[in-house]
Amino acid sequence: MTSYQVRPVARIESPLTDRATAPKQGDEGAPPSRVVFAPEFAPAAADLRPGDRLVLLTWLHEADCEVQAVHPRGDRDRPSTGVFSTRSPDRPNPIGLHTVTVTAVDGGTLTVTGLEAIDGTPVLDVKPVLGEVAER
Amino acid sequence: MTSYQVRPVARIESPLTDRATAPKQGDEGAPPSRVVFAPEFAPAAADLRPGDRLVLLTWLHEADCEVQAVHPRGDRDRPSTGVFSTRSPDRPNPIGLHTVTVTAVDGGTLTVTGLEAIDGTPVLDVKPVLGEVAER
Repeated sequence: MTSYQVRPVARIESPLTDRATAPKQGDEGAPPSRVVFAPEFAPAAADLRPGDRLVLLTWLHEADCEVQAVHPRGDRDRPSTGVFSTRSPDRPNPIGLHTVTVTAVDGGTLTVTGLEAIDGTPVLDVKPVLGEVAER
Repeated sequence: MTSYQVRPVARIESPLTDRATAPKQGDEGAPPSRVVFAPEFAPAAADLRPGDRLVLLTWLHEADCEVQAVHPRGDRDRPSTGVFSTRSPDRPNPIGLHTVTVTAVDGGTLTVTGLEAIDGTPVLDVKPVLGEVAER
């Protein structure tokens, strides 16, 4: 099958620098961090506001794309499991999925809470968390 | 910034064939459809089961990657809005985010409900919907 090219639209700035010690999910103790947009994507980011609940898709740049099965959460007492049944960062396309809340917007930079991605992680996409059908 | 390569791991089979008439979200009248994994990714898919709630990440292959602002839901009475504040398929990296429920598993093929992607859409990643922290 054809492959496709993805290009980072932003990058994460975070006090988390080590994959091994970072929280496994954003609701497991992640510190505030920043989403810094590349200038060429400013129009796409122009309507983001404090209080927005967003989904970030990231490229987990330290992941191993050849891994197809893991022991969930690195616990060898749990059976080896196909990665599509886990949230392992090691997977064929290492795209991270994060739900964050924007606390501040300063030019092309967002401050967000609830993000467990490490410093330097590329961001591929930003989407609003969907409200009820009637509010879309 | 560096770009990255993504490779489809599966493809959607759906009675929906036209982007213009497909529902805009999976909870807006999507029909049952199928996720057909490429044989080389069978190990990653091996633990998927009926009843699983999954997040699918797709490549919206008919999208326009140059679009940075749209009228939400194609309604020209709504102001032009940066695409990172919308769910427009037209965006710099057209990655679709879908929450589905597996109703059947047959070899490397899942039957799922709640998916609005059109026939032939490439799937990049499959993740379980996260339960409570204690259940992970």
